Amino acid sequence: MKETSTYINTKQTNGPQPVDGVDKKSSAAQGASDAFNNSRRIYASPLKAPMREVRLSPSVDPHGVARENPPVLIYDATGPYGDPDKLPNPREGLEAVREAWILERGGVEERRIQRPDYNFPVKRPARRAQSGVCVTQLHYARQGIVTKEMEYVATRENMRQHEAYHAAQRRDDFPEATPEFVRDEIAAGRAIIPCNINHPELEPMIIGRHFLTKINANIGNSALSSSVEEEVEKMIWASRWGADTLMDLSTGNRIPETREWILRNCHLPIGTVPIYETLERVGGDPDALNWEIFREVVIEQCDQGVDYFTIHAGVLKDYIRPAVEDRLCGIVSRGGSILARWIMTHGEENFLYTHFRELCEIMAAYDVAFSLGDGLRPGAIHDANDAAQFAELKTQGELTRIAWEYDVQVMNEGPGHVPMHRIRENVEKQMEWCSEAPFYTLGPLVTDIAPGYDHMTSMIGAAEIGRHGTALLCYVTPKEHLGLPNHGDVKEGAIAYKIAAHAADVAKGHPQALVRDYALSKARYEFRWDDQFNLSLDPDKARKMHDETLPGAGSKSAHFCSMCGPKFCAYQLSQEAAADLRNA
Amino acid sequence: MKETSTYINTKQTNGPQPVDGVDKKSSAAQGASDAFNNSRRIYASPLKAPMREVRLSPSVDPHGVARENPPVLIYDATGPYGDPDKLPNPREGLEAVREAWILERGGVEERRIQRPDYNFPVKRPARRAQSGVCVTQLHYARQGIVTKEMEYVATRENMRQHEAYHAAQRRDDFPEATPEFVRDEIAAGRAIIPCNINHPELEPMIIGRHFLTKINANIGNSALSSSVEEEVEKMIWASRWGADTLMDLSTGNRIPETREWILRNCHLPIGTVPIYETLERVGGDPDALNWEIFREVVIEQCDQGVDYFTIHAGVLKDYIRPAVEDRLCGIVSRGGSILARWIMTHGEENFLYTHFRELCEIMAAYDVAFSLGDGLRPGAIHDANDAAQFAELKTQGELTRIAWEYDVQVMNEGPGHVPMHRIRENVEKQMEWCSEAPFYTLGPLVTDIAPGYDHMTSMIGAAEIGRHGTALLCYVTPKEHLGLPNHGDVKEGAIAYKIAAHAADVAKGHPQALVRDYALSKARYEFRWDDQFNLSLDPDKARKMHDETLPGAGSKSAHFCSMCGPKFCAYQLSQEAAADLRNA
Repeated sequence: MKETSTYINTKQTNGPQPVDGVDKKSSAAQGASDAFNNSRRIYASPLKAPMREVRLSPSVDPHGVARENPPVLIYDATGPYGDPDKLPNPREGLEAVREAWILERGGVEERRIQRPDYNFPVKRPARRAQSGVCVTQLHYARQGIVTKEMEYVATRENMRQHEAYHAAQRRDDFPEATPEFVRDEIAAGRAIIPCNINHPELEPMIIGRHFLTKINANIGNSALSSSVEEEVEKMIWASRWGADTLMDLSTGNRIPETREWILRNCHLPIGTVPIYETLERVGGDPDALNWEIFREVVIEQCDQGVDYFTIHAGVLKDYIRPAVEDRLCGIVSRGGSILARWIMTHGEENFLYTHFRELCEIMAAYDVAFSLGDGLRPGAIHDANDAAQFAELKTQGELTRIAWEYDVQVMNEGPGHVPMHRIRENVEKQMEWCSEAPFYTLGPLVTDIAPGYDHMTSMIGAAEIGRHGTALLCYVTPKEHLGLPNHGDVKEGAIAYKIAAHAADVAKGHPQALVRDYALSKARYEFRWDDQFNLSLDPDKARKMHDETLPGAGSKSAHFCSMCGPKFCAYQLSQEAAADLRNA
Repeated sequence: MKETSTYINTKQTNGPQPVDGVDKKSSAAQGASDAFNNSRRIYASPLKAPMREVRLSPSVDPHGVARENPPVLIYDATGPYGDPDKLPNPREGLEAVREAWILERGGVEERRIQRPDYNFPVKRPARRAQSGVCVTQLHYARQGIVTKEMEYVATRENMRQHEAYHAAQRRDDFPEATPEFVRDEIAAGRAIIPCNINHPELEPMIIGRHFLTKINANIGNSALSSSVEEEVEKMIWASRWGADTLMDLSTGNRIPETREWILRNCHLPIGTVPIYETLERVGGDPDALNWEIFREVVIEQCDQGVDYFTIHAGVLKDYIRPAVEDRLCGIVSRGGSILARWIMTHGEENFLYTHFRELCEIMAAYDVAFSLGDGLRPGAIHDANDAAQFAELKTQGELTRIAWEYDVQVMNEGPGHVPMHRIRENVEKQMEWCSEAPFYTLGPLVTDIAPGYDHMTSMIGAAEIGRHGTALLCYVTPKEHLGLPNHGDVKEGAIAYKIAAHAADVAKGHPQALVRDYALSKARYEFRWDDQFNLSLDPDKARKMHDETLPGAGSKSAHFCSMCGPKFCAYQLSQEAAADLRNA
C-alpha cells in the first residue's frame, strides 16, 4: 500500500478547518467564480462533504428596516473544480479522498497493471476484493454497516438549511436522509452508490428515488472526431453545469487512455458500455464478439476504476423478432443492435445473459454497479411500451435479483422515446418487475418532431418520469440525432436536465428543492435582483439577459423591471397593497 | 358597404385554383422558403383553408427498390406570410378574407371612425351588430348554424392525410373535427373562434380541448423600448414560428396606432388587456380608473378589431387580503394588481365585476371573446392552488355563465407558477367550476430557479396542463422575469411551446400530431435526412447542426451519423437484422 500513499491526502494540511460544525473556506475563495457570485464552497463535517453556500442580501421594508436573509445551501457536484482553493492539475489527477476508507475496511488485494498495449502511465496498482470477501456497498448495508460513503452521501443530501427556511420545507411525504436511512435504502436495493474501489477520487453520491434526482451526462470521443484532452475538458464542463454522473461512451481510438485520464481527474461516478470497447478489440465485427474478450475488457475497466457498466444482458433471442419486425424504428440502442446481430449470426442466446453470474462475481470484487441496459428501448414514440421493450424489462428484473444474490448494486436503464401519457406506466412496471431497483432513463423524448431541440422534447419526459420515481435522468443535448455535442450543447443539455430533475424533486416534496425555490421566489418579489441571479441555475445568463434591457448597477436595485416598466409594476403595487392592509 | 369593398378580394383573380379537391399553388412557390424546404402552401376547398404540404423522398430498400412516401400535411398558421405567392404589403394590410362572410350573414351596421387623437389612417368603417341582432359564433352555433368560420376551422383541423398514414393515426378517443362537431363544441361553450367582425383579415382558428392545442405569443411595446415597426415585425416573426394567437400587451406610447398596424396586418386573432390602455388614459394612476373610461377604451378596441379581451373581473374585494397577506409573492398579474389597488382605494367592488353585463352587451355586438383574466394567479410555485387563486377561478365560472347568457364566447385564463404535482388539479377545477369553457394558461412554470430558461421551466408545465385539456398555451420566452424578448427569444419561446402543444396532442391522441411524428420517425430510421429536417419544427437548425459534424451533400444520404460513426450505427445494424429475418 505504501506505493500508492504518496497520491493521497497531499493537500490535507491545507484543507478546511471546522467552524460551527461546518468547514468553511477562507473568504479568498469567495467570488472567485463569476458565474456563482456570492457563493462559497463549504465542507460539512465529519467527512467534508462539499456544498455551496449562497449568501443573500437583506430584505428592506418600506421604512428602510432591514431583515437578514440567511444563506441557502445547494447540493454541489462540481467537486474540486468548484473550489477555487483546490486547483486540480490534470497531469496529477485528483486527491484520492476515498482511499483511506477503502483501505480501512480492508479485504482488498493489489496488483500492478502491466498491459502491453497501455502506452500511458497508470497511476496506482489495481485493487480487488480478496477471495471470499465482498466489498460492495450493498454487502455492507446488508450487514447493517454504515460506510463512510453512506455517511458522506447522507450529509450531502441532508443539508441543514437555516431555520428561517423551515416553513418552505415540506416533510410529510419525503423521508430524511439519515445515514441509517441511506443504509436501509441500499440494503433494500432501492438506492445505489456507484463507487469502484479503484476510483478513490470519487466523491460518493447516491442514486435512488428517495434522494435528490440526479442527472447523467454523456461524453466520449467517437470514430469521427474529438481528442482525449477535449473529453477531459468536456467532463469538467459537464460537472460545472450540474452533471452528477458521467458516461464515457468513447468508440474511437485510444479508449483506455481517454478513460484513464477521465477517471483520474473525475470526482463523479463514471459509467461505460464495455461492449463498445470489446467491439473495437475484435475489429468492429459484431459476429466476432465472445464472452472471453468481453470478460477481459470488463476486468480491465474494473481495474481502471469505472463505477458502473451498462450491460445489455436482457436482449434475448426471442425478443429480436418483435423488436425489428413489429416496430417503426427497430432497435436503436447501439449495444442492443450489436448483440442482436451477434445472436442472429450465431443462433445462440446472448452471451451476456448466459454468463451473467460470472459477470456478477467480477463486478462484486470491485463494487462496480450494474446499469442493466435497455437494448430494445423504443427509438420513436410510435414504438413505446411495446412487447419487445417490456419483455426486456422483465428480464432486467430477473437479472437484478441475480445480481443482488452477489451483493452487486444494480440500476435499470429505461427509454428513450415515450409519449406523455405512457410515461408513468414505465416507472410503475419497472418498480414492480425490477423490485424497486433505481430507474435510469434517457429522457424520454415525448415527440420526435423537433430535432435540434431534443434537450427540450426530452426534458418534458424526464421531469414526468422523474416525479414518478426515476432516480437518474440521462441528459439529451440539442445535437441528439444530429451530431456530436460541443460545449454549448453539453451546457444546454445539463441545464435542461437540472431543471427537469429539480422540477421532479419539487413535485416529490424534497425539502432541499423547495428551499431553493422559496428563496429565489422571495428574492424576485423583493427586487433583490442579485440574489435572484445568484440562486439560479445559470447566474451569468440571467444577469446578462437582465442587463440587455436595463444595464447598470442602479437597475439591480430598481423596484421594477423592463417588462412592465416603472409605472405598472405588479410586484410594487402588490407590496403597496400589503402595506396598506397592514396599516388599515 | 361600397366604401369598404375596394379593400377586399383584390387578389382573387390571382388566387389558387382547385385541383383534386385541393387548391395547389404553382410550383414557383415551392422551395421559396429556405426554412421550409420541400414544402408548399396548399389551400383546401371549399374555403381555401391554408395548410402546408411537405413532400418526401422515397424509401429505398437494400435491393434498391423505391417506395413512395406520400406528402404530409401540416396545420399552417403562418397566413399570407407563409405563401410566397402572396406578398403582404404592411402599408396596405392583408386581404379581408372574412369580409364577405360577415356581410353575407348581415345584421351589422357601419360607422366611420373619427377620433380626434387618431393621427393615423383608419382603413375601413367600424361595424357592429344592429340593435336586437346577435352576430357571435356562439349565437350562430346555438341556432344550429354552421358558419363559414366553423367550416374553415373544420377544414384546417381535419386535414385529410394520405391513406398510407392511416396506421399512424389513433382515433379511438379523439373526435373528428367535422363542421357539425365544431358547431356543437362552440354551442356547448367548450370551444371558441375568436373573430371580431372588425378583423376581417383573420384566418379563423378554434380554441378548444377537442382540437389541436394552440399557442399564444405576447408582443407589444413597453414604456421602456420598442417601436411600432418592431412590433409588426415581431408579430410576423411569431407567426412564422407557430404562434396561433397573439396578445398585444403594449403599455407605452401610441397604443392605438400600434394596434391598428398589427390588426390590419395580422391573420391571427389578437387579444389585448384593455385595462392597460385605460390606465394610460388616466395618466397612470390606478385610483383614477373608472367604468366610463374603461368602456370607452373597450369600444374603441372593438371598433378596431381586437378579437379577445383579458378582463380581470374575477378579482373581488374579498380575495385581495388572502392574495397579498397569505402569499410569498402577492399579486403578480399587472391587471390584477391594478384592480386590487383600485378596489382598496375606493373600498368598492371591482368595477369590471359590477359592470360585467354591460361589458357582455358591448362585446356581443362585435363578437369579441372574453379571456377571463386570472388577476390572482400564483407568481411563485409556493403560492400555487391557494385560496385566492381558486376563489377567483370560481368567480370566473360565474362570469363565464353570465357571458354565455349574452352569447359571448369565453375562455378562462390560468396560471402561472405551479409545481408538477398540482397542475392537473387546475384543469379539473377549471373544467368543473367554469363549465368546460376553454382553458388558457401561462405556462405554468414548474420551478422558479431558472431565470433565463423559463421557456423551458414552463414548457414542462405547459405540456402537462395541455395534455389534461388546456386548449391554449401562452408562451413564455427565455427573457421572462428579466427583460423584453428580442427576435431570438420570441422564436425560442414559440418553438418551446409548439413542442409542448404537440406533445400534449400526441398524448391526447390527435391524429394530425401522430402522423407528423410517424413520418419523421420513419424518415430518421431510413436515413432520409432531408425529410427528417423538413418535417421538423425548425428545419434550418436541424440541418445546420447536422452539418456542423458531417457537412456536405453526401452525408445527407449517409447510412450513419456522427454520433455513432460509420461502423456502429444501430439503425443500420437493426435494418440488416430485419432483412436477415425476412430472408430466414
